[in-house]
Parts: sequence; C-alpha cells; structure tokens
Amino acid sequence: MKDMTPYGIRQQIRSGEFSENTSGLAQGFVQGNLAIMPKEWANDFLQFCQLNPKPCPIIGMSSQPGDFMLPDLGQDVDIRTDIPKYRIYEHGVLTKEVTDVTEYWQDDLVTFLLGCSFSFEEALIADGLEVRNITEGVNVPMYRTNIDCKPAGRFSGTTVVSMRPMKPADAIRAIQICTRFPSVHGAPLHFGDPSQIGIADINAPDFGDAVTINEGEVPVFWACGVTPQVAIEQAKPPMCITHSPGHMLITDLPNSRLSVL
Amino acid sequence: MKDMTPYGIRQQIRSGEFSENTSGLAQGFVQGNLAIMPKEWANDFLQFCQLNPKPCPIIGMSSQPGDFMLPDLGQDVDIRTDIPKYRIYEHGVLTKEVTDVTEYWQDDLVTFLLGCSFSFEEALIADGLEVRNITEGVNVPMYRTNIDCKPAGRFSGTTVVSMRPMKPADAIRAIQICTRFPSVHGAPLHFGDPSQIGIADINAPDFGDAVTINEGEVPVFWACGVTPQVAIEQAKPPMCITHSPGHMLITDLPNSRLSVL
Repeated sequence: MKDMTPYGIRQQIRSGEFSENTSGLAQGFVQGNLAIMPKEWANDFLQFCQLNPKPCPIIGMSSQPGDFMLPDLGQDVDIRTDIPKYRIYEHGVLTKEVTDVTEYWQDDLVTFLLGCSFSFEEALIADGLEVRNITEGVNVPMYRTNIDCKPAGRFSGTTVVSMRPMKPADAIRAIQICTRFPSVHGAPLHFGDPSQIGIADINAPDFGDAVTINEGEVPVFWACGVTPQVAIEQAKPPMCITHSPGHMLITDLPNSRLSVL
Repeated sequence: MKDMTPYGIRQQIRSGEFSENTSGLAQGFVQGNLAIMPKEWANDFLQFCQLNPKPCPIIGMSSQPGDFMLPDLGQDVDIRTDIPKYRIYEHGVLTKEVTDVTEYWQDDLVTFLLGCSFSFEEALIADGLEVRNITEGVNVPMYRTNIDCKPAGRFSGTTVVSMRPMKPADAIRAIQICTRFPSVHGAPLHFGDPSQIGIADINAPDFGDAVTINEGEVPVFWACGVTPQVAIEQAKPPMCITHSPGHMLITDLPNSRLSVL
C-alpha cells in the first residue's frame, strides 16, 4: 500500500479491499477530514468554518448540493465510496459505521473536506523535527479547551487542540514551518502552561492517547479538526456523515500545494 | 528630531548638534550596530559574522579598506562623523568615547554595520504586540548564555541574548513576524526556562535593565548584537571602533527592505 498512488489506494478503498486507517499512506499527498450534511445546515456550517479557519480549514467542497464527485480533489473521487470508513450521525448521535454511504445519499447533501494535521506533521518530520505521537506509534493527544469558537447559526463550541511536545528551539522552528500551511491548522495556538487554555491534566487527553513529555520540553498546541466534529455533535443536524477517525480521504493534491510560500 | 529624515538627523550628528541615543528616531528606517577594525582582523570577523548570522547579521560593509563613505546605506554617509557617539577599544580595552573618529582613521580600517533589534521591535509594535522594554522606558535586558558561537580565527565566544516577555499566543505571533527579518536577528532562539540556555537569574541581566514579567507570560529570547562586541573584547584587536550602546547609525533604508517576504 505504501508505494501506491492516491488514485490506486482510492480504487482499493472503493472496491472494499481496504478499510483501514490511512495514516502513513500516500506520503506527500493531502488527506482530509470529511463532513457531509443537508444544505439547510450546510450554510451555517460553511460560515462556522469561515469564522474559525484555524480549527476548520476548508480545502474542498462540493459545487452543488447532491454532488458526490469532487474533481478538484483528485481523479474520479466519489465521496460516497472512496473513504475507508464513515460514521453516520442522526440528530447528533452516532448510529452507524459503514464503508460505503451510497445507500444513505440524498439530493440535498453538501460535502466539506477540511485540512488535517498529517500534512504539517510530514513537513515537520521532513525538516528533522520529532513528532512524538508518530515516534510512539499512537494517536495524537487532543484536549478540549476554554477557547471559544465564533458561533454561526446553530454551530458553536470551544476549540479542541492537538498537542506535540518539543524543546523550545524546535517549537520555534515548528511555528515557522506550520505558518506556511494555514489550510492545515497553521501555526500553533499556544505553548507551555496547559491551564492557560483550560486543560486541567496534560496526561489525560479528551481524545487520542497521552504521549511522553521529556524534561526540557514544552507542550505545543495546535487547533484540531475534531473541533468541527464536536460542533456538529452539539448542533445535532438530523443527518450528518463524517469519516471515522484516522480514515481520511486521500486526495491527489501534493502537500506542497497547501503551502502559501 | 522625531520628524526629521535620516539624512537630516545625520547632518545634525555630523555637526555635533546631536550626540544622544537614537532610539525612537527616524521611525521606519533601519538603524545599525557599528564595528570597525583593521583589515588584518576584519577577515576573521567577517567569517565570524557569516558563521553566526543570527547574533551578527551584516547589513553593510565598506567596499575597500580605508573607505569611510557608505553609499549603499544612505546619502552622503560618512562613518567617521555620522554616529552620535563612538567607543574606541585598544587591545580589547575601552579607552575613549568620542563623537567623531576622523583623527583615529587609518587606511586599513574596514567597517561593518550589523542589524539591530530596533527594526523588529517596530514591526512587533506595528502588529499590536507590546514590547516591554519600550513600555517601561528602559534598555532591553540582555544575558550571556551557554550557546557557543562558531569560532572564526581569533573570534569566539558565547551568544548574548535579549529578552522580551510575552504571553504564549503573542510569542507565536512574534516568531512569525521576526522570521521575516533575518537580518535583524530573525526568529527568537529560545523561550521559557532561562536555565536551559545558561541564564541563572532572569531578574539580573548582564547588560541593560530588568523588565517586569507578568503572570502568564514567558521570557522570549533573541540573539543580540552585543554578541559580536563581546567577541571583539575577547579577541583584543589592537584597535577597534564601535558605536556607544544605543547610539546607532541611522540609514536611509526603510525597515521593510530588510524583510524577506
């Protein structure tokens, strides 16, 4: 799988041969978080993303309600079949996890693809920095904070952050690198004392896994793509489809295309 | 003075009418640190600066030994007369402080102008950040560290840093802004725990004045133009001329010309 093109991997996913986590696949290509909801809710959600671009960076969107082909994101991308695992929410409650959403499709569904941290983690590692969750082979630790998102219609909530511990000099370099990638959460929001952003226990993340913080390192916090998922759960649209965590859409866009410099 | 052009201020300095600190003058224009020494030492010093660009960013240099006009830095700039106060070192010892070095000029002297923090402090303030030493009306606190410079010939030493306390989110923004200005020390070298870079007491700077660090702020450390001065004092060239601290060359270059983006 590691050597396959994004198109090749999507074909395996569509055929049902592959339904696993996409972490580490198609190195160098953008992967995205999925959110699909009825048009009547999508307008509010679009505004929510635009008001909160650090946690909710939109990298793709269907051009018309009901469209399931996303040609801007890659060759023959069919969003109903090309993600390895989907979650279906009804009125904010997770009701099903499936590998194909064709039978749930509706003519009013609008698709959003949001940037994900895989892209900037790859840039950090390429620069020689360590990304602790990757070194330790676990999910990145994520925390609810007291940083309010700007509300839009029925969508509101606080920002969820991911955390990667670094030495200060490495954190400074990471800030420089991530500044170049505003559509995958951009520069960190905070570093150092977790209580300043409402995190009570750095060793007890709300999502993902705890990682080791070594002597001389500080926790560095980035806005996280779980933020819109939490906002969706709170808004409770009658129907919503997301990817299952870690099971992303692999696009044909090189990561460098998300760089502003 | 505040409304005068760089050229106008230099004329006042040359005539002896003005011999004070240049802080806050000619807003928007680059000011520079001075180092003048015999050619036989200048080659080593040039290499020292090139190996240590963060503390020693060269923004100008005389084209031939003995040259005292610096046309690239501004209209009619005569480095012998256009700085308000000079220091003369003999064998590493400060022996005189004068307002004109014409009588000390030698045919083998090479002039270096190095970037100074005034330029990036102006950029930080323009972005809405607070620069504590300016708010408190004192010299920026500076500290000797345990960060070795790369040696070149007879020049060596450790890095001196300046410190400005900030909230973490402001420090992240400051890192972004200063990254655009590599020739005025660029991004910070360190933040947080001072002992990690060999600073024993943050309230007892080695140069300049202590500033208030408020609850929730972290000290942020930048490479400092005092580093080359310390290296010169240690190398002990037979003769060397520097500016007196705070008494800079005011150039005709807009600060934006030092920005890489």
